[in-house]
Order: sequence, then C-alpha cells, then structure tokens
Amino acid sequence: MKVIGEKINGTRKRVKEAVLNRDTAFVQQLAADQAAAGATWIDVNAGTPADREPDDLVWLVQTVQAAVDKPLCLDSASPAALAAALPEVKQPPLINSISGEQARLAGVLPLAARAQGGVIALAMDDKGIPTTAGGRLEIVRRLVGLTREAGIPDEQVYVDPLVMTIGASGDAGRIALATVRAVKAEFPQVHFTSGLSNVSFGLPTRSLINRAFLTLMLEAGLDSAILDPLDIELRRAILAAEAVLGIDRYCLNYTRAFRAGLLE
Amino acid sequence: MKVIGEKINGTRKRVKEAVLNRDTAFVQQLAADQAAAGATWIDVNAGTPADREPDDLVWLVQTVQAAVDKPLCLDSASPAALAAALPEVKQPPLINSISGEQARLAGVLPLAARAQGGVIALAMDDKGIPTTAGGRLEIVRRLVGLTREAGIPDEQVYVDPLVMTIGASGDAGRIALATVRAVKAEFPQVHFTSGLSNVSFGLPTRSLINRAFLTLMLEAGLDSAILDPLDIELRRAILAAEAVLGIDRYCLNYTRAFRAGLLE
Repeated sequence: MKVIGEKINGTRKRVKEAVLNRDTAFVQQLAADQAAAGATWIDVNAGTPADREPDDLVWLVQTVQAAVDKPLCLDSASPAALAAALPEVKQPPLINSISGEQARLAGVLPLAARAQGGVIALAMDDKGIPTTAGGRLEIVRRLVGLTREAGIPDEQVYVDPLVMTIGASGDAGRIALATVRAVKAEFPQVHFTSGLSNVSFGLPTRSLINRAFLTLMLEAGLDSAILDPLDIELRRAILAAEAVLGIDRYCLNYTRAFRAGLLE
Repeated sequence: MKVIGEKINGTRKRVKEAVLNRDTAFVQQLAADQAAAGATWIDVNAGTPADREPDDLVWLVQTVQAAVDKPLCLDSASPAALAAALPEVKQPPLINSISGEQARLAGVLPLAARAQGGVIALAMDDKGIPTTAGGRLEIVRRLVGLTREAGIPDEQVYVDPLVMTIGASGDAGRIALATVRAVKAEFPQVHFTSGLSNVSFGLPTRSLINRAFLTLMLEAGLDSAILDPLDIELRRAILAAEAVLGIDRYCLNYTRAFRAGLLE
C-alpha cells in the first residue's frame, strides 16, 4: 500500500503557525521524516485563508521539494491555490481532490488533467455523501466519465470511498468496504485512497479502530491511504495485512521490517 | 465472535504434565482464567497416548466442569476417548472434529450426532487439504450432506476452512477467506471456526500476523475461533474489527472494554 504522508496540514495548529511564520526547518523536518518512513507522496495543505492560500501553498511546495525528492499531494479545494502551485512542482503531483460537487469539478478538474499525476475523487456530490455503496458508485461512475473526457486515464484516478464514523452508524465501515469493491469491479484500473480520521471519530483508543479499518480496506482493494507514516502501529498493521493477503510476496517486506526492528 | 479457549491442550508440555500428574489446581486455573476472559467453550485435549486418553479426557472433563460453568470443546480424534467423555459433560459440547477422512467420519460423526452441541468440520479429506477454495467447498458440501443425514442441524456445524502458513504460500490467507465466503454463501446457517497457529508459522512477531488474519476472517464470516482468550492483543483486534464491521452494535462492547481498561 502506498502512503500519502498527511502531516503537513495547516488545519493542525502547529503546522499552520509554521506556514504563517515561514518556518522552513519545521516543515522540512516533517517532510524528511515522512519520506524516511516510506511515504510515496507528501501531502501539502496550507489551511490558510483564501486570499493568502496561493502564496502559502507555493511556499510549501518549494520548501518541501527542497528537502525531499518525493512527489507531492496538492491538498486544496481552491483552484487559485492549485493553479499557483502547479507550475512549481518538480514531479507530477496528486491533486486532492475532486468530487461530484459542481464548483469543485469546474475549478479543479482542468488543473488535474493538466497535472497528469493523479487525482483523488471523493464519492460525494452537491447533495452530500450517499448512505449506500450503490449511491457512491453512481457518483464515481459520473466522475470517471468526466475524468476520461478530460483525458485523465483511469489509473490516475484515486477514488476515496469516504467513511463516516462508526460511532454514529454501525454500517459506516461496511459501506466504505462495499464501495471499494463495487468501484473496483466496474473500474479495475482505478486506484483507491482513504483517510482514517473519520472512521474512529468520537471513540476511545482510535488507533485500534483505524488499524482494523485499514486492514479490512486493504483486502477490499484499497491500495493507498492518507495517514501518518510515522505511526508505527499503523505500519505494522499494513505489513501484517499485506503478508496475510499475499500482496507482500514471500513476506519479504514483513521479514525485512522485522530485521530492521520495526515489528516490536 | 465466540471464543474456544485453547489453553488446556496436552500437546503443550506443561499441560501434558498436569494431565499425567492429575494436577487439578493447574488445570482448573487455566479453565477459570479462560472463562473469566470471555471464552464461550473451554477446549480440552488430553494429548496422551491412545491407551490412556479416554481416562485422561474424562478426568479433564470432570476437573474443568468442577471449576467453571462453561460448555466444553472435546478435542480428540479418538472415538474411544470421545465416547468415554461424552456421558460426563454437563452441557452439550462441541466435538473437535470431523473431516472428510473416512476413519474419522465413521468413528466421530455418530458421537457428534448424539452430543447435539456442535461439531467442528475440517475442510480436508483422506487426500489432504485442497489447495483451492473450490476444492475445500466440495469437501464441506459432502460433510454437510453427512451431518444432515446424521440429524445434525446446520447451525450445529462449525466449518474450519483450514489455513496453511503464508510463509510457504502467499495464497494461503486468501484461500481461507474465500473458503469461508463460499461456504457461507451456500450454507448460510453454518458457523465457522479457525485456529490461528498455522497462518503465521515460521514468521517473526506471529501475533501481528494472527491479528490481521483474524480481522480479515471476521469480515469474511468467521464467527468463532480457537485461540488464547488471555491474549489481550487478540481480544483488542476482535473488539476493533467487530466495531468497524457493525457486528458490535453502537460499539457497546468496544466502549465497555475501554471503560474496563482493556484497550490500553
């Protein structure tokens, strides 16, 4: 499973301060730590007000790229910020994200098509997040139609099935799993990604829930996730699930991680 | 998920000594600890030579029942030992196990039919364990035909899909999962059980693998397992998986376990 390192996110107070104060060392350390822990992409989210987000996102892109040789995940709902950041990237980036929401589609889809790195597609539209896998599949079907029209090949689309908190609805986990399975059956080239923060919201010992969810999502077909690559328990859970599922051939990654002292 | 407490097993050296020496206190402590940790059944396996196994199994049954008010899982391939132990049980026991092996079927099936507590049915026969889910399903189909003929209702059959070590075959985990799904689709009333020791054999940090496997098997339909109920990490993994899958309605067991200090 590929990892989108989530830590450089301006919705976190300490990161927002770093963005506002142009704290290069702090941001570069977060980038370097995540890269060293195996992140495939480094997510950058400025999380600052609209009028300054383009400048802040450009600064983040330049700052992170000066520290690590990794593609970025440009995490913004603002077409202006994305348009400002895109000319600065050194490697084709993931764009986070489009959805069935009209405004988002109109603003972000053309940029994603130009970037040609990949685009995260959320299974929701202007009416919200459907409560059934079938409803989410329908939105994804529409989105994949649009990404194809825009010239984005399916293998550059990363569907996020979206997961609600299981504390509010007992079906939330199963709906996310079913969405991945349904989308995968219909669009075998499409990739998947998911965040973990919603599933365990409001519950104690959230990391336990997050690990179980990630393990199950891996079997359903999830092949990337937005998470903290420094969370060693999550990494162990991924390694174990990939070994059990034969994704990790001959358990090579698992035994290598053991020899590196990562398993205990 | 229901748990068959595995600890009173004479193939473990310390338990075998206790059986041979009639160490009542040791065996009763194992029984009480497992019952307190939530085991639904207490497995009893004498693990002694054929000529004394009937006596030893009877002693185990009497000794465990004097300590805990739980049904037993009579774990023996010997019809003589099972026949001796059955009249001693106070609650309908699980019989562990039948398989497609002719000798085992002939000897154990009539006893299981009489016991009416439940019978574990291994997905193997005289030719061994099929390497495909389809091959295992075929054996289960034959076995369920026989248990029905013997008057055992499907809901008293506990299919063990059998899992090989993933260290030897990358498909081993997926085959076990696929077997559960295939059997469940064809026989919706049947229950499932599985041991964990094979899946991780030969790999380091086996408990990590066992937890991932159990999490995935739960989603496939596994509703009981033979394991050490005192293994707190396994219990946490089960609690988390059941919460994510909505098996644990409103996450009640999960939050209760948290309040009891079991989650960390």
